[in-house]
Amino acid sequence: MAPGQQDLVLSKHPPDIEELLSLNPRASPHANLQPSSVTKVNKKHWKRNKVKCETHCSLENDFSDVKHTTLSERGALREAVRCLKCADAPCQKSCPTQLDVKMFISCIANKNYYGAAKMILSDNPLGLTCGMVCPTSDLCVGGCNLYGTEEGPINIGGLQQFATEMFREMNIPQTLPATLPQPRCGPASISCATFLARLGYTSLTVYEREAWVGGLSTSEIPQYRLPYDAVAWEVKLLTDLGVTIEKGRQLSLKDLTVKGLLDQGFKAVFVGIGLPSPKRNPIFAGLTEAQGFYTSKEFLPQVAKASKPGMCGSCKTPALPSLKGVVLVLGAGDTAFDCATSALRCGARRVFVAFRRGFTNIRAVPEEMELAREERCEFLPFLSPRRVVTRQDRITGMVFARTEQQEDGSWVEDEDQTTQIKCDVIISAFGSHLQDEDVLGALAPVELQDSGLPRVDPITMGSSEPAVFFGGDIAGTAETTVESVNDGKTAAWSMHKYLQGLAGVTVPLEAALPQFHTPVDDVDLSIEICGIRFPNPFGLASAPPTTSAPMMRRAYEAGWGFCVTKTFGLDKDLVTNVSPRIVRGTTSGHVYGPGQGSFLNIELISEKTAAYWCKSIMELKADFPDNVLIASIMCSYNEDDWTELTKMVVAAGADAIELNLSCPHGMGERGMGLACGQDPEMVMNICKWVRTASPIPFFAKLTPNVTEIVHIATAAKEGGADGVTATNTVSGLMGLHADGTAWPSVGVQRRTTYGGVSGNAIRPIALRAVSAIARALPGFPILATGGIDSADAGFQFLLGGASALQVCSSVQNQDFTVITDYLLGLKTLLYLRHTVGDDWDGQSPPTPQHQRGKPVTLAGALQSKDALPNFGPYLLEREKRNAAALKKGGRGRCAPPDEDELSRRRVALQARGVSTVKDIVGLALPLIGTYGDLNNLQQKVALIDPEMCINCGKCYMTCNDSGYQAITFDPETHLTKVTSDCTGCTLCVSVCPIIDCIK
Amino acid sequence: MAPGQQDLVLSKHPPDIEELLSLNPRASPHANLQPSSVTKVNKKHWKRNKVKCETHCSLENDFSDVKHTTLSERGALREAVRCLKCADAPCQKSCPTQLDVKMFISCIANKNYYGAAKMILSDNPLGLTCGMVCPTSDLCVGGCNLYGTEEGPINIGGLQQFATEMFREMNIPQTLPATLPQPRCGPASISCATFLARLGYTSLTVYEREAWVGGLSTSEIPQYRLPYDAVAWEVKLLTDLGVTIEKGRQLSLKDLTVKGLLDQGFKAVFVGIGLPSPKRNPIFAGLTEAQGFYTSKEFLPQVAKASKPGMCGSCKTPALPSLKGVVLVLGAGDTAFDCATSALRCGARRVFVAFRRGFTNIRAVPEEMELAREERCEFLPFLSPRRVVTRQDRITGMVFARTEQQEDGSWVEDEDQTTQIKCDVIISAFGSHLQDEDVLGALAPVELQDSGLPRVDPITMGSSEPAVFFGGDIAGTAETTVESVNDGKTAAWSMHKYLQGLAGVTVPLEAALPQFHTPVDDVDLSIEICGIRFPNPFGLASAPPTTSAPMMRRAYEAGWGFCVTKTFGLDKDLVTNVSPRIVRGTTSGHVYGPGQGSFLNIELISEKTAAYWCKSIMELKADFPDNVLIASIMCSYNEDDWTELTKMVVAAGADAIELNLSCPHGMGERGMGLACGQDPEMVMNICKWVRTASPIPFFAKLTPNVTEIVHIATAAKEGGADGVTATNTVSGLMGLHADGTAWPSVGVQRRTTYGGVSGNAIRPIALRAVSAIARALPGFPILATGGIDSADAGFQFLLGGASALQVCSSVQNQDFTVITDYLLGLKTLLYLRHTVGDDWDGQSPPTPQHQRGKPVTLAGALQSKDALPNFGPYLLEREKRNAAALKKGGRGRCAPPDEDELSRRRVALQARGVSTVKDIVGLALPLIGTYGDLNNLQQKVALIDPEMCINCGKCYMTCNDSGYQAITFDPETHLTKVTSDCTGCTLCVSVCPIIDCIK
Repeated sequence: MAPGQQDLVLSKHPPDIEELLSLNPRASPHANLQPSSVTKVNKKHWKRNKVKCETHCSLENDFSDVKHTTLSERGALREAVRCLKCADAPCQKSCPTQLDVKMFISCIANKNYYGAAKMILSDNPLGLTCGMVCPTSDLCVGGCNLYGTEEGPINIGGLQQFATEMFREMNIPQTLPATLPQPRCGPASISCATFLARLGYTSLTVYEREAWVGGLSTSEIPQYRLPYDAVAWEVKLLTDLGVTIEKGRQLSLKDLTVKGLLDQGFKAVFVGIGLPSPKRNPIFAGLTEAQGFYTSKEFLPQVAKASKPGMCGSCKTPALPSLKGVVLVLGAGDTAFDCATSALRCGARRVFVAFRRGFTNIRAVPEEMELAREERCEFLPFLSPRRVVTRQDRITGMVFARTEQQEDGSWVEDEDQTTQIKCDVIISAFGSHLQDEDVLGALAPVELQDSGLPRVDPITMGSSEPAVFFGGDIAGTAETTVESVNDGKTAAWSMHKYLQGLAGVTVPLEAALPQFHTPVDDVDLSIEICGIRFPNPFGLASAPPTTSAPMMRRAYEAGWGFCVTKTFGLDKDLVTNVSPRIVRGTTSGHVYGPGQGSFLNIELISEKTAAYWCKSIMELKADFPDNVLIASIMCSYNEDDWTELTKMVVAAGADAIELNLSCPHGMGERGMGLACGQDPEMVMNICKWVRTASPIPFFAKLTPNVTEIVHIATAAKEGGADGVTATNTVSGLMGLHADGTAWPSVGVQRRTTYGGVSGNAIRPIALRAVSAIARALPGFPILATGGIDSADAGFQFLLGGASALQVCSSVQNQDFTVITDYLLGLKTLLYLRHTVGDDWDGQSPPTPQHQRGKPVTLAGALQSKDALPNFGPYLLEREKRNAAALKKGGRGRCAPPDEDELSRRRVALQARGVSTVKDIVGLALPLIGTYGDLNNLQQKVALIDPEMCINCGKCYMTCNDSGYQAITFDPETHLTKVTSDCTGCTLCVSVCPIIDCIK
Repeated sequence: MAPGQQDLVLSKHPPDIEELLSLNPRASPHANLQPSSVTKVNKKHWKRNKVKCETHCSLENDFSDVKHTTLSERGALREAVRCLKCADAPCQKSCPTQLDVKMFISCIANKNYYGAAKMILSDNPLGLTCGMVCPTSDLCVGGCNLYGTEEGPINIGGLQQFATEMFREMNIPQTLPATLPQPRCGPASISCATFLARLGYTSLTVYEREAWVGGLSTSEIPQYRLPYDAVAWEVKLLTDLGVTIEKGRQLSLKDLTVKGLLDQGFKAVFVGIGLPSPKRNPIFAGLTEAQGFYTSKEFLPQVAKASKPGMCGSCKTPALPSLKGVVLVLGAGDTAFDCATSALRCGARRVFVAFRRGFTNIRAVPEEMELAREERCEFLPFLSPRRVVTRQDRITGMVFARTEQQEDGSWVEDEDQTTQIKCDVIISAFGSHLQDEDVLGALAPVELQDSGLPRVDPITMGSSEPAVFFGGDIAGTAETTVESVNDGKTAAWSMHKYLQGLAGVTVPLEAALPQFHTPVDDVDLSIEICGIRFPNPFGLASAPPTTSAPMMRRAYEAGWGFCVTKTFGLDKDLVTNVSPRIVRGTTSGHVYGPGQGSFLNIELISEKTAAYWCKSIMELKADFPDNVLIASIMCSYNEDDWTELTKMVVAAGADAIELNLSCPHGMGERGMGLACGQDPEMVMNICKWVRTASPIPFFAKLTPNVTEIVHIATAAKEGGADGVTATNTVSGLMGLHADGTAWPSVGVQRRTTYGGVSGNAIRPIALRAVSAIARALPGFPILATGGIDSADAGFQFLLGGASALQVCSSVQNQDFTVITDYLLGLKTLLYLRHTVGDDWDGQSPPTPQHQRGKPVTLAGALQSKDALPNFGPYLLEREKRNAAALKKGGRGRCAPPDEDELSRRRVALQARGVSTVKDIVGLALPLIGTYGDLNNLQQKVALIDPEMCINCGKCYMTCNDSGYQAITFDPETHLTKVTSDCTGCTLCVSVCPIIDCIK
């Protein structure tokens, strides 16, 4: 203590800290009082939702993302974990491309973004586009079972977009697998070409009329809904497979004709040209753009060309159509709303959307209309266009007749009631059709229907000509991008059948379209442990998922590398279980449903006999020679028993044996399980007995319920074990009801006993155990178990010294197919170690500064030093500066990635090679040591990024009440700042809700 | 093995199980293919979102809840945990009543529903009403910091409604506290009267014009937004305080006048009569209801009286206004939309809402318009009413002129452009005013403004007459119910100041309105341990929240019963910490922000000297003699050191001592902490040394990192300890980055060491430790620590044998004010043990069969045996049956509770008395025992409630892959059923997302 300090009051904060604490929460003994008139003013300061702009808010030149569905990593993880991963999931059934939504969302929840993207792109080569533009409320989301709860359905489109974007960041090409099937381009065409290429066809050419790719996705869906770089990337994935794209070639009597292509030697033709001509009401005859008239088919491509960076290649970007004054859009489909919101960005002062019917009967799905509504377009229902009013050869208005629905549902138009809307520009969005004689001629000899469209079989997408297939708008079924994609996919399979038929090969009845494939899929996951080759390090632990042999069979079929049987004993030790016995955890809060962070069980060993298991082992090894089967056995502390049982399983043909020395409940009372496993001497002796009886490798499964697990592992090694399994469940009591009974409670007396806690809650304990054993006994194999719920978690155990990974709780939460996620995730982690930048953590790139989906496109308007929060007056100021900057010509953050740079980087990184599982086992160990090894001179202090900060003050509060009062909190801006009192405890980082906001 | 079984294949499922498994997920090696035309049909079967009804969907007679915000317990818990509990929270600042939103949501997240309701009703006596009807997007929600993330703002209104409804279920009256302050009705009036009553005024009378209570909330807000029983309950809380309500009395020259009331002896008058007369456009002069004309002020009360059960007391419920055909509503405020949706329920075939301006300028906030939009009302913007068209004395239509906004923002009405809308009924909703001469006369001598309203000070709500105060619509500031409530609250404080002034008493400047109070608040939480009286069992553990003495001071001020200092040692053992050292847990998934399920720390003991702590102890005990202060100390294994330090803290005046024998990192390497605590002999010896030196009680803090903690506790007892603290953190490694470094990693070398895991993840371990020690050493005091994050968790530890509760991690997640939640929650749990039915679990009543907020009001239309899922054709069928039943006269589930029955039950239950903390300590212990004590003959099987089931199939999947293939899943209805193969393992219950769906 410094001299004089005796006189200071130590237990009161000095005045500067008291000042700093002024906004820290305090319990008030009274009700709070503020007159309503004061709050009316105050609340404006804190307002975060969109302010009603009294006149109009400028969107001129603002093409930044406006989708509500777009997600950042934080948002995606939160949303993905909500998904229930349903059985026979209705989302998948409602998706035209039959995307395995459950599986890709499972992957996202586990930070396996490649796995998710692979699932998506396997079924939908335009997965990014469709994630952005699908009217999901009418598709996948419409069937989501979570509609049955108040939290509502999953944002599936946003998750799809997120996963594919993350994968795009990984910069990995599409490839064909080494073993291909045998055979010697709009959305529909790209899809069709992709699947044909995946089927192994090599001479594929896509003819594209325009100078750019993507068809309608590029030319008619606005940049703020679907940026060009997304489409370009999807096309790049197609050309990765060697497909040729010829631009500037069209279906026309003057260029390509169906007959010509067949004559030229193409064996089959797919036509996905959309509907090329706008429907045009005769009242617009002769009107020109100069006068203020556009059809949507003229207007949207002009906007696209001017606002989609990269679209026209090296050409000079043309200017936006300049729309001053009032714009009137006619129509009520999604195109009409795209025209309306585009018009705002072209400078329109005010936009009206007029349509014939009411809101009740509108054609567009809600999400398509929503953007226009939010951007304050005005809607005029019940109006049927009659004539255009012009003055001095410029449009000045439009006259409508009022429409009315009769009681019988029919519609009448009342010519006596007319309304004139003043406007400067009219955009007609009445859809498209196929009427161009030149195109029709080029289609010959394909038969047409009365509607003018070709006659197409909706099941095969075939036409009257066996070699000619159709998809997309022209085929008459698809109304959305994703349905067009699926037409292409369907046609690809039909073309394959047709082409194989030409060669006399019969294709199986059930479609077998190859999945998306990249070099990641070629990563080898096998690892050798004790001379046994494991096809991959993931296996099922000895636990409920291996209750019976048929379940193990299904697990092998699903892709699990190995299984450990449910523990069995000799007949004299047979058990009967109590009920209930497996309960949900309480360690992750009040969460109901899958994704339980822990379970507790009081289940005993198998109720089945050793004979049952030995015969099963024989059967399974006969059918799955390449998968590993480990028999888990348990006896009381008795040499004869262990010897007898060991010999039985060796005779049955098990690859290895696991000795259950660790069951924490029930068995201990019989002198088995952890009753043996807590005593090093007993462990050593049992191992010696088994060693004598067993020529095959065996592992001692250890309990974590000991003072030092390393001593037990050492005893096992000294007893001759080939390795250990670490760890079994942790002894615990999960929770008590308010009436004092536990859950589980058994029988009318409602008694309980301590059970075993499993799942993520015990992962830190298991990870410590594995790494401690690995450090103490280098090279001694460890099978890890305890909270392995993902490739990410499994990877951590491998880094910590495990050689293989056992899973139980996460299968209880879901089902056997989680292995697909784990295998892809582990392959990706191994692949990415050397092929992305060092600033990635596993599959997570560094978080961009702004929240995705909440764009704060400042287009250089804001210097980083004068950060402004996103509420009240600051939000207005941001919007003002932003609008000004955009008007000057900025385009928000929509610059396309530099393709050349990406390619260079890809090549450079790939040269570094890909790791194997063996390479990473134990990599983390040299960095784990004693506290004394840590350097307490190199201190860190927190750094808060004001641009990412959402002003919640969590860092401030935790620093005040659990730290050092070293963070200030501005009373007006709610921005926080770290003072020199910071000791770097990092608690603020721990509670900050925004990923990478505090560093 | 049975004879013949040898021949069976054991490792394959029999055919019936293979059949059952047909919908279980399987990984597919191929892309999935289904033509778009097929999916178009299939998706309809699974559709859960509202189907567009081609004609119109009947809502006739359907007054069930339609609010999107309404939440069930599952929904409320999910939403509450999302809340960040911000510093200086903008939600509170934006609430007219300044509700402590953060605190009440914290309470909900912890299942402390009483605590939440108390917070709400303290500031807003109409908390239930406002939770239901507040336009929150313009109030609390408008400021929510979560707008800064994609997940969006919190549903604050829904949470407010949920908490107050749960409290209503508890059936507890409002009371006045024993120690009152000294002084010897519409929403505004109820609020004003409530606060005056809470301030201790006893002669309070509310005069109500109508025969029912609640003012506009009752008569003009429809039942499906605000049921009458909610309002009636709030009024009951008011009369609980002894306030008299006289019905049928009005402000009128013929009845009550301001002057008359003052003359009669009332010392002050509050006027909250709303605006009694509808504004009526002259074009409606002479029109009658018989002709088809209503104002909203006539229409809505008629609908209310017919649809609000209980509103008219014992009178016969009148019939609904019968509206056939087309209804035209005029206006664009919330009242207009209430009229529109009410009209649908009165049988209108079609409803139009016409308004003068566009959507952009509409007055209503989005959520008010939303319901009308969803119920398919049609909107007609830009129309100004001109004249009514009648035929045969019935309204047949209305003529409008078109309005147009000029470039300068002004509006013109174009008389040349008229539109006629056919309709059978017109409802005008143009607001209200104060023009009744009779009322104006009764207000004299209060001064009026030019607008006709009284001149009111918006800060005090006072008028020109010092004894007369105003609030609500008539006062001119409030535009919403909640602002009216706040007017009453503000006026109450002003009236208190005025009345105290009359008595010559000066009221403090800062308002001190008493909070809501009930018998729960009077529950005594104190407990005596080792002769020391703890004011309540909650204290801060020796950890970061007690880093310094000023923090402990603030903790005592916040309400913590005791604090344990951060552990300190002798000067020779002083430490310096590394950085970083406290990191977020990974045990609850990828959750960022507060609510971390665990933390890991490698922080050492205090960096401050023993002298600092001893002086601080002296200061704190001087200022907080009634709070308990425990000094935590640590030395190496050396009698002299322990003796010296013990004597220092005894001399400083600590109430008790805690011996830190358990720090799991760093200190062990110095032969301190867990290095001592893992050895029973060392523990016993240290306790003996301290016992010799200390006349005050001391507790040994134990480590869970031992084989059997009971042995260590026994050693401590034998050494003379007065009790133990169980447990310290669990040794662990929280996680590794993909590059092999751990988090935390220290210095440029990025090394780490094992740290201590704290928080909910270790609660099952701590609960086991506490209960095991309590069973082994009956009566030996235990201070519990390890995942106590709520009163609920604390209660479990008390049941398990703890006497006091130490907290750290949850303060790290939030701040010191969590103690308010914990104290109220614990009081409630003690109170409710005997005063609610046995079917409650703590503060949770049994879940009602249907999901709140997703009403499936079947009004007897559906027998429980023919359960129908809520999608596709089944959903349509439900809606059809429901509409038919309602038409017959059902009213959905809106019957009011039987007040008499509730009162009887309340009295009967209260006779059972209230528990003390001591009463419940160790109550659970007799039910905890060995596995052998459990009865394995009394088996349970799962029972699934098809009405609650959301058809996700989670139970089916987990039973297939981790259980017994004992649940079937119907391919069409997705309903599940349990077969006779069920062994009662309860895994299905563990993963079911719906509370109480599986039993």
